[in-house]
Amino acid sequence: MSNTNEIKTRFMERLRTIKSYGEAVGLLLWDLRTGAPKKGVAQRSKTVGLLHTEAHKLTVSDEMGKMLEALAQPDVFTGLSEIEQRAVETMKLQYDRSRKIPTDQFQAYVTLTAEAESVWEEAKRNADFKAFQPYLEKIVDYNRKFAELWGYEDHPYNALLEDYEPGLTVRQLDEWFGQVKDQLVPLVAQVKDSGIKPDTSFLNQPFDKEKQLAFNRYIVQELGYDFNAGRIDETEHPFAIGLNPGDVRITTRFKPDELTFALFSTIHECGHALYEQNIAEEIAGTTLAQGASYGIHESQSRFWEIFIGMSRPFWNRYLPELQKHFPGQLDEVTVDQFYRAINKSEPSLIRIEADELTYNLHIMIRYEIEKQLIAGQIEVKDLPEIWNAKYEEYLGLRPQHDGEGVLQDVHWSGGSFGYFPSYSLGNMYAAQITAAIRRDLPNLDELVEQGEFAPIKNWLTERIYRHGAVMKPERFIVQVTGEELNVQYLLDHLKTKFGELYELE
Amino acid sequence: MSNTNEIKTRFMERLRTIKSYGEAVGLLLWDLRTGAPKKGVAQRSKTVGLLHTEAHKLTVSDEMGKMLEALAQPDVFTGLSEIEQRAVETMKLQYDRSRKIPTDQFQAYVTLTAEAESVWEEAKRNADFKAFQPYLEKIVDYNRKFAELWGYEDHPYNALLEDYEPGLTVRQLDEWFGQVKDQLVPLVAQVKDSGIKPDTSFLNQPFDKEKQLAFNRYIVQELGYDFNAGRIDETEHPFAIGLNPGDVRITTRFKPDELTFALFSTIHECGHALYEQNIAEEIAGTTLAQGASYGIHESQSRFWEIFIGMSRPFWNRYLPELQKHFPGQLDEVTVDQFYRAINKSEPSLIRIEADELTYNLHIMIRYEIEKQLIAGQIEVKDLPEIWNAKYEEYLGLRPQHDGEGVLQDVHWSGGSFGYFPSYSLGNMYAAQITAAIRRDLPNLDELVEQGEFAPIKNWLTERIYRHGAVMKPERFIVQVTGEELNVQYLLDHLKTKFGELYELE
Repeated sequence: MSNTNEIKTRFMERLRTIKSYGEAVGLLLWDLRTGAPKKGVAQRSKTVGLLHTEAHKLTVSDEMGKMLEALAQPDVFTGLSEIEQRAVETMKLQYDRSRKIPTDQFQAYVTLTAEAESVWEEAKRNADFKAFQPYLEKIVDYNRKFAELWGYEDHPYNALLEDYEPGLTVRQLDEWFGQVKDQLVPLVAQVKDSGIKPDTSFLNQPFDKEKQLAFNRYIVQELGYDFNAGRIDETEHPFAIGLNPGDVRITTRFKPDELTFALFSTIHECGHALYEQNIAEEIAGTTLAQGASYGIHESQSRFWEIFIGMSRPFWNRYLPELQKHFPGQLDEVTVDQFYRAINKSEPSLIRIEADELTYNLHIMIRYEIEKQLIAGQIEVKDLPEIWNAKYEEYLGLRPQHDGEGVLQDVHWSGGSFGYFPSYSLGNMYAAQITAAIRRDLPNLDELVEQGEFAPIKNWLTERIYRHGAVMKPERFIVQVTGEELNVQYLLDHLKTKFGELYELE
Repeated sequence: MSNTNEIKTRFMERLRTIKSYGEAVGLLLWDLRTGAPKKGVAQRSKTVGLLHTEAHKLTVSDEMGKMLEALAQPDVFTGLSEIEQRAVETMKLQYDRSRKIPTDQFQAYVTLTAEAESVWEEAKRNADFKAFQPYLEKIVDYNRKFAELWGYEDHPYNALLEDYEPGLTVRQLDEWFGQVKDQLVPLVAQVKDSGIKPDTSFLNQPFDKEKQLAFNRYIVQELGYDFNAGRIDETEHPFAIGLNPGDVRITTRFKPDELTFALFSTIHECGHALYEQNIAEEIAGTTLAQGASYGIHESQSRFWEIFIGMSRPFWNRYLPELQKHFPGQLDEVTVDQFYRAINKSEPSLIRIEADELTYNLHIMIRYEIEKQLIAGQIEVKDLPEIWNAKYEEYLGLRPQHDGEGVLQDVHWSGGSFGYFPSYSLGNMYAAQITAAIRRDLPNLDELVEQGEFAPIKNWLTERIYRHGAVMKPERFIVQVTGEELNVQYLLDHLKTKFGELYELE
């Protein structure tokens, strides 16, 4: 018994160590992206690699194996606290998966993906799929091999989904994306044919960067972002990073001639950050001090970005503030005009520029392709054609070249197969969570209209944020909303919102 | 033989690992000081401690001991490259010293000094030496114990000097500071009695912070600081930090009503940075990619700050530029007035505000006290009185309270006994190096007046910078200037410069 206690203490201590490495790596990467001088990058990358490796070694060490074995014994496990149990479960998942991959294969794969990213960048710039193809083929092969090593039921892609959304399966995704396809493809077509073209010209003026930053800072502070536990910086690609719950940073990118890119991306990252800033003290410093899954994390960025930030009540409250920040530039714009402009929907080729309505179709295309690639039903060499055909089928658009087609996303170059579905899952979760909040806070719109976000943030903190990764992703949505995932929440929301915007019957 | 090669490779690899931990810790600290959100500090400090401990473990591991033993065998050692030899020597010094201290004592000491710093801060604020006294007593006791464990010849303080200036001894310092005392104390008195009071009023006006930053950036770029391998940020206490030779950052603090504080502190830190930016590629990434000693590092900050930045030729070139940066504020000021103002000398109580002439007396006082404390010749409880008496004797001033007296510096609270002398050593080195440069570049003043710093930087890079810690501190000044340290270079420089400024015969 004393022995078990000792192991438990040593195990939890080890998780803190791994988390500390994670914090250091996180800061090194944040710094690389926010302003590290370029001549230091090569050496810095080695340092990142080294710390990463050290943390990985701790995760897969024989000692970790022995601790996990001891703590996973049923009679021991049942005596653990909920936090300790989850710590054992999540670490065991990582340990088992890592140990199943032979070290030489893992090393080769890490080297391959590191190299592939710069090859992809170049290929994208030159719209030259052939240059990237051999790398992607190898990456897909590795992922298929890993799936076999990890094991799965029903479909090899399930083994990969496990990295991003533990418990998620192809069967579920097929059902959900089936509903998305059935209901969204016609809706997108209806919107396109509605003949309504909202005026967005006032969003495209020169907007002073300092003023944009000031407004963004103001807005996230309103939402509840704590600047004593975070900061905003500029980067090429916006992101949020939780170094620890007291230091959760967001970054954004300002376009000089466009107002909403920075604004909604900041609110999006703020959503991620609110999650991590509100993780409970008792798990801070352990590996559980993070989001419960990629999809759940994304549900929070999308909740604040879309369901709050792009809603009408929000702009009833904040358009006057925006107008004050940019005197003379938006004075004549009404809330209705503004709301219609920011929610303009139009099929497009680029995922990261897609509007709320069409976004899930971009994800669906990637999901269909990944699933078939991993199952060996299609080949990498045929991807450009497959990609273009799907864009034509679902969005009615065909890329002119692979740079705006199959090469547009970074994910595959890093081997992130199974990541994309979490984007749509985030939207589905967010819609269902919004409905649940509305049941508990029927005056939700009024709260938003009054800039009263505390009750909303508290609702989310209580049910989601404070639990970090102690919460099981598989049970998450039931625990939070009282029912299984129901895609209809998202689809109904889109039908209502865009039905009204585009005056569909 | 193959075995030796293997050990050598593993050893050099280990040094890279230790350096990588150092880079990560460096960035974590830089970030804490430049803008990390305050709620993350507690967790961050744990992460710093953890990485620090990991690096320390590698340094003192049994494996390290075995590698060092193998590589230090005379027949093996002679077959090593110069870089490898120095790597073995410097690491062996650190290993031996660390292993001599029992782990429990080391841990207790780390905890004590961590605690002592905040106690000191509070004590300084309240001018309450009694509050700090018990901590300082323990710290001094530990340092006396460490000196015995480490071993020394002649004087226990020599054992402590080894951490900052390997090879430096009390005998040398007594001789050098003897000359300093004999020649500077009367010179300081002469200046005081000269009746000349340079007008410095124009240095104290409101100077826009952004313009100060712009001018500082301009100046360091002129001196050769590479912004592709560094950046400038603001901190409460200015510092330079070399994360790797491609990423050497400096920080500064702007006073809104004062021009020269930020400027000369930036040039000072720039001097440190020029050293580290120009370390040779072949040692980058190893533990040798740093300055050869504290005193040598300081010689470079002081060279650029004092011998370049506070010289008359420098302001012949840059006063017009400064005037352009602050239109209307300095238009009437002549180079002579400006030069006299920035070099105004006056005995004062606070070391970090001391001018070039009186600065070494501040250091001498601390040296005399440290030496006697470590030798057990004086007691901590008597320090305030001893301190005040020495200030009265050497500088003709008596602190009103201990906050501006014995409590003013942070060093002792961190246990840094033996550090202070390196400040004066830096000045002595810098004066002697300036004379050596002048022999090789007789047109030095002209170069400075033309803003041609490349030949100067190249001279220093060739002889000092690129060698990093491969250079032995003991042989440093002979190697660079061709002769042993001669304090007269510094004293003659001060006599000439201040003799002219204060019109002494």
